[in-house]
Amino acid sequence: MAKETDQMQKIVSLCKRRGFVFQSSEIYGGLRSAYDYGPLGVELKRNIMNAWWRDMVQSREDVVGLDASIIMHPRVWEASGHLAGFSDPLVDCRVCKERFRADHATPATEGQDLVLTFADKARAKAAQELIKTQFGVELEAHGKELKGAKAGNRGYVCPVCNSPFLSEERQFNLMFRSSIGPVDAMTEVAQAIERGELAGLQGNALRAKLDELTKDSAVYLRPETAQAMFVQFMNIQQSMSMKVPFGIAQQGKSFRNEITVEHFIFRSCEFEQMEMEFFCEPGTDDEWMDYWKDFRLNWWKKFTNHPENFRLRAHDQAELAHYAKACYDVEYLYPWGWGELEGIANRTDYDLQKHAKYSGQKLEYFDPTAQKKYTPYVIEPSAGATRGLLVMLIDAYNEETLENGETRVVLKLHPALAPIKVAVLPLVKKDGMPEKAREVVNAFLAHGINARYDEQQTIGRRYRRHDEIGTPWCLTIDGQTLQDGTITIRDRDTMEQQRISIDTAVQEIESRLRKI
Amino acid sequence: MAKETDQMQKIVSLCKRRGFVFQSSEIYGGLRSAYDYGPLGVELKRNIMNAWWRDMVQSREDVVGLDASIIMHPRVWEASGHLAGFSDPLVDCRVCKERFRADHATPATEGQDLVLTFADKARAKAAQELIKTQFGVELEAHGKELKGAKAGNRGYVCPVCNSPFLSEERQFNLMFRSSIGPVDAMTEVAQAIERGELAGLQGNALRAKLDELTKDSAVYLRPETAQAMFVQFMNIQQSMSMKVPFGIAQQGKSFRNEITVEHFIFRSCEFEQMEMEFFCEPGTDDEWMDYWKDFRLNWWKKFTNHPENFRLRAHDQAELAHYAKACYDVEYLYPWGWGELEGIANRTDYDLQKHAKYSGQKLEYFDPTAQKKYTPYVIEPSAGATRGLLVMLIDAYNEETLENGETRVVLKLHPALAPIKVAVLPLVKKDGMPEKAREVVNAFLAHGINARYDEQQTIGRRYRRHDEIGTPWCLTIDGQTLQDGTITIRDRDTMEQQRISIDTAVQEIESRLRKI
Repeated sequence: MAKETDQMQKIVSLCKRRGFVFQSSEIYGGLRSAYDYGPLGVELKRNIMNAWWRDMVQSREDVVGLDASIIMHPRVWEASGHLAGFSDPLVDCRVCKERFRADHATPATEGQDLVLTFADKARAKAAQELIKTQFGVELEAHGKELKGAKAGNRGYVCPVCNSPFLSEERQFNLMFRSSIGPVDAMTEVAQAIERGELAGLQGNALRAKLDELTKDSAVYLRPETAQAMFVQFMNIQQSMSMKVPFGIAQQGKSFRNEITVEHFIFRSCEFEQMEMEFFCEPGTDDEWMDYWKDFRLNWWKKFTNHPENFRLRAHDQAELAHYAKACYDVEYLYPWGWGELEGIANRTDYDLQKHAKYSGQKLEYFDPTAQKKYTPYVIEPSAGATRGLLVMLIDAYNEETLENGETRVVLKLHPALAPIKVAVLPLVKKDGMPEKAREVVNAFLAHGINARYDEQQTIGRRYRRHDEIGTPWCLTIDGQTLQDGTITIRDRDTMEQQRISIDTAVQEIESRLRKI
Repeated sequence: MAKETDQMQKIVSLCKRRGFVFQSSEIYGGLRSAYDYGPLGVELKRNIMNAWWRDMVQSREDVVGLDASIIMHPRVWEASGHLAGFSDPLVDCRVCKERFRADHATPATEGQDLVLTFADKARAKAAQELIKTQFGVELEAHGKELKGAKAGNRGYVCPVCNSPFLSEERQFNLMFRSSIGPVDAMTEVAQAIERGELAGLQGNALRAKLDELTKDSAVYLRPETAQAMFVQFMNIQQSMSMKVPFGIAQQGKSFRNEITVEHFIFRSCEFEQMEMEFFCEPGTDDEWMDYWKDFRLNWWKKFTNHPENFRLRAHDQAELAHYAKACYDVEYLYPWGWGELEGIANRTDYDLQKHAKYSGQKLEYFDPTAQKKYTPYVIEPSAGATRGLLVMLIDAYNEETLENGETRVVLKLHPALAPIKVAVLPLVKKDGMPEKAREVVNAFLAHGINARYDEQQTIGRRYRRHDEIGTPWCLTIDGQTLQDGTITIRDRDTMEQQRISIDTAVQEIESRLRKI
């Protein structure tokens, strides 16, 4: 465990130090679980997402793209079940104010003796007073503990202070809510208060009234990109004359107001997805499931140094979402154990049927060859782009002990994903070497290959620096370059160097990039 | 005017019919001013945005990228002034419930006789009753009009019904507001109501109390991508060892709860930006302003058929934002007249100074050569990506009358932007032509060139279809192909055809794409 935490800490630290990932709004103390992708992170993320788009959309005739709005019509989330089901049962402790999930709370049987425990004596005293005033119960104080309370019939108590004085359970929606249009939610509420409409209401009745008041202007940030592909199914099928089987793919941000955020960018409130909905004829869905689960596992494996850290795991019946016929996770062996990287689900015709029902529109496909209509089944490979970036970083991170005893940190990123493909280094800052190096950089940039000029510090430190950010090749301009027009090309992983002609440098790198 | 509306209607219709742009959530009646980019729209948008990224970031050593979270720390918006200033003065009519901008309302001098007018007699009657009950004023009903009211001292009346019975003016914030974390805003409000804290409050006092209650969990969707570049200035400068002058660039969605949405995707609540903040030494800012305004104007002109429809316009002193030293708009001649496509502003050191003050962090640059510290000035080229897409569509849209009297609709998109580069068309669906055509398509896809196979309907209709979506070249497989290995290549704009060897097709298109 310590070793694993250690590895993650080193990666998080590298990410900040070298411009991969920063905490969002860091100068303001950061925002809970939000991250910014810095100069190298944004290139790594673009490389991953562009590779997905190329392999899933552009190079396939049977998949087309979509880029839908993040704020969709609220009925979409009623139909999808997110408004009702995308929530946890939450409870507030009325003593220590902790909010917790009822299904994760400390169990307690009715009548059980409780010892309420607080951070210090003063807080215990304040809690004693509050309990007496608000609930009419007198407890005995013993230092930072209060004794004499008994568990009620809820089956659980506060997991922090053991209090049985709890709010009602409330469904807490994981979707971020906002309001659109000229009337915002708070205005509606203020007007209702002024009209006296909320007087005397409390608990869930009050909540229900508040929800009703603000319903017309309420909108939500999408918690997944998938729904837009169902909602636009007919528009896309018809405008592009697509024949089933075909897929609709989308990349973009999604938002979940997660209670538990963890493991750096593994689970955060704002994240980026790469999803595809593949529409097929019922009866062919099992075949397509086989196809896509293997396709997706192999896609991730193309970029890894450790294929053994990727696996498929079938969901068992109890784990399946109620609408899914089958589901496989592409799992990765994170430092904290196996966990999800991508899910491939057979969603059947659940979503199209639901949206047809809620919208009153027909969402069907007419097969011109078989002369029949049906609602297609859907196989959905749904991957996290930001999670994929984390996996690629963990996969690439290496510490090696060199012959001289020094430790070399090297990110063995797949060259196709590396933010910078080539570093061009003048051995010294004189004798025309910087000028020559700039010429080489420009030649690469003209060919669309991300190259970077670097003249700061010794050549050895520059090599280390580029090892650490995953630059696959370093080209060094030295004294000999100016005499015979050759440069050294150094390989990140083997650290081997060879001399090549400066005129063939671009060609050489282009061919190495093509090989992989 | 009619002609211009007509052109926009044709473009909107083409966008839906051919899969460029759909209304968001259309099957649910659409969402106010939100749009989805369909299979062709998403490729066009990607091509525009990737070209910008290539020319502004990847091919330049002095600009690096960023991809920050959409939800940032709320203090960012206090520092930037968006929380205070990003708003319009809004008023509600207490009779007809219209919400309107005070500065756009119907003027009326105090004591002026008013005729309140409603949609029908019943509504006039209901309004008469409401005015009597709520304001103690009795008006005479004449059909759908009410007479006897006089204007108050506000200087205006309701622009819909002419009522002088108005709410206070309120600042309406254009930022979408949400709440993050386990306690949502409505819960805070409900608890305050239960505690009786809101009793007796009204008007702005009530609003202030509600804002205070919900302040801790309040977050906002960014109304521009720019602020993240200021907030992460130090992290990026240090992690990448950047030397001033340098720029930070970002692309991504921004959100504004606009009162007025107009002209299709020209102004919508959810839109995509391409922004760059170029940090330079004070005193060099005027030079850099000159550089970037010309660079940006010329960038757009690279893709146009009508360079005369693009121009630079300097803001005059009165028009300048209070923090800006100078600003130029890249304007485009839309069907409704000249309007903004991109702004290039000299923001001085306003933003860095503000964030330094609000965060308590130093946001300065130490110049190692001159051995001095300073706060850089900023030149900001800020373009709308979705607006750019609209401009490219308008620029490309053409109707031509052919010799046979038919009308040909052709999108003369720059080949680098065209969603599909090559259509491959078997003349007939037999004699091995479809198989040959598929081979050609696959050869293109393997070279990363977006090609599409199309066999539906006559060859003439297929040419028209690809003209309409801007495909620059159609390759046709015919009887002769199977005999001598040649195919015809047809140019979208000239409609000229020539025969080339099938083996050189990919090369030929690659070289044509390189030329432009």
